Amino acid sequence: MNEVLFKHTLPIQLRFNDVDTFGHVNNTVYFSFYDLGKTTYFDGLKQQNPALEHVDIVIVNLQADFLSPIFPVEQVAVQTAVVELGNKSFKMFQRVINTETSEVKCVCQTVLVGFDKKTNTAKPIPVEWKRAICDYEGCEDLLK
Amino acid sequence: MNEVLFKHTLPIQLRFNDVDTFGHVNNTVYFSFYDLGKTTYFDGLKQQNPALEHVDIVIVNLQADFLSPIFPVEQVAVQTAVVELGNKSFKMFQRVINTETSEVKCVCQTVLVGFDKKTNTAKPIPVEWKRAICDYEGCEDLLK
Amino acid sequence: MNEVLFKHTLPIQLRFNDVDTFGHVNNTVYFSFYDLGKTTYFDGLKQQNPALEHVDIVIVNLQADFLSPIFPVEQVAVQTAVVELGNKSFKMFQRVINTETSEVKCVCQTVLVGFDKKTNTAKPIPVEWKRAICDYEGCEDLLK
Amino acid sequence: MNEVLFKHTLPIQLRFNDVDTFGHVNNTVYFSFYDLGKTTYFDGLKQQNPALEHVDIVIVNLQADFLSPIFPVEQVAVQTAVVELGNKSFKMFQRVINTETSEVKCVCQTVLVGFDKKTNTAKPIPVEWKRAICDYEGCEDLLK
Repeated sequence: MNEVLFKHTLPIQLRFNDVDTFGHVNNTVYFSFYDLGKTTYFDGLKQQNPALEHVDIVIVNLQADFLSPIFPVEQVAVQTAVVELGNKSFKMFQRVINTETSEVKCVCQTVLVGFDKKTNTAKPIPVEWKRAICDYEGCEDLLK
Repeated sequence: MNEVLFKHTLPIQLRFNDVDTFGHVNNTVYFSFYDLGKTTYFDGLKQQNPALEHVDIVIVNLQADFLSPIFPVEQVAVQTAVVELGNKSFKMFQRVINTETSEVKCVCQTVLVGFDKKTNTAKPIPVEWKRAICDYEGCEDLLK
Repeated sequence: MNEVLFKHTLPIQLRFNDVDTFGHVNNTVYFSFYDLGKTTYFDGLKQQNPALEHVDIVIVNLQADFLSPIFPVEQVAVQTAVVELGNKSFKMFQRVINTETSEVKCVCQTVLVGFDKKTNTAKPIPVEWKRAICDYEGCEDLLK
Repeated sequence: MNEVLFKHTLPIQLRFNDVDTFGHVNNTVYFSFYDLGKTTYFDGLKQQNPALEHVDIVIVNLQADFLSPIFPVEQVAVQTAVVELGNKSFKMFQRVINTETSEVKCVCQTVLVGFDKKTNTAKPIPVEWKRAICDYEGCEDLLK
């Protein structure tokens, strides 16, 4: 993940109860940060591409590495990039960094699929969404 | 609140991240317990009275006293009672206790109102709901 | 609380799971916002007054009014002021507002006391802290 | 993970705000369940082996698959097993199931390491802990 270029960075506001009895941000809270990164990423695409229709997307898998604890005094941000883009699924890389030291606290890769609520089955990612993601990330690497 | 007879007691399963950096359950988490007590209270009434229709109810006010910290090793439960029942609003008393020592950890009173989502205004509590609550709590004290 | 002058305003970053099944920010999450407002308020005082020693403070009571739902698209902030300042306790007023419309979403008053962890009893608020609070809020109204 | 024998099952009490705006339990909350499963697993070992000393253990990696949404009316439990046991690290398998239908909602594998807080480095798992885990899970498969 080191060579991923993250164009999307969202500063995170830590909350008092994010910190557990060990004095650092509880591991489970990291996934709220990743969630917020994802949501904000898609919201940004919609703002840039108002014609994009709502698509239901669900997370099917994630893998997370915990590299270093986050302390409550730190300034952190979550970074998000789409790194693979298929017909029905795509993969995101994310990480949380200390924005002052650039230390990487944790990294996460997530596989998401388009989802049809009516049939309860996977559904292709609309081509307009793929185009919007490619425009944002730089197309060459993604559409294969 | 000492003289309230609580007929509804729900044991609470503490979670690791309920506990904050001070080593006891974070104050804000108490309101999740109260919420769960309320939800379970109403679910119980519906099970006893299957004909009850769904009513939208919103919290307008709550007052909470924090008496003693909750430690992660403790067995706790939230207790819930309706103590006043008007046409458009009613009042609940709740408390969290250590179920082994009966120590009262915190108490809370909440005012709730019936709510009409369409008109965005308060709405009478249906008489069937008032009857169900009275049957549960003991009617004489509530309906005035 | 309308006539309170709030000098401390903290924008709040909403998280995806702050929003419950009704589509607005869950009531219990408001108390995380109030918590964060309090913490940030005290942190600010410490930064302005580096000589201030750590004091343990606990919440003994809070009263909250829920005026209007918070929707996930809204920009909100929590505002915090100390409005009464005694020897062993003080009172804070807080509210959450939509920063674009100034709509007040909810208000909360909290009574806090100085606390001695060793003796497990209330403890006077150190005079340096009272001075720092007065300097921040405007002294005349607070010290009586 | 299908062939793993889970000896440790912990029923989970869902909370109102576990459910997000889509009407099912938010993905990020699953990790609280896994956390609680882990904590309870270790607490159980300590109760069975009072001589066990406290060991600091940290999560270095987890991989989670989301198979099916959890709805608020469901009865769920988290199941936990240690499936690999090395000198400095071990691996846990966990899953959340509907206890009535046995439907598997999500699975998670976690790599944990012993940790020395003073030196901030990985540290061997004490042999007494390894013994306790083996006794619980059945030794042959774990100690290699």
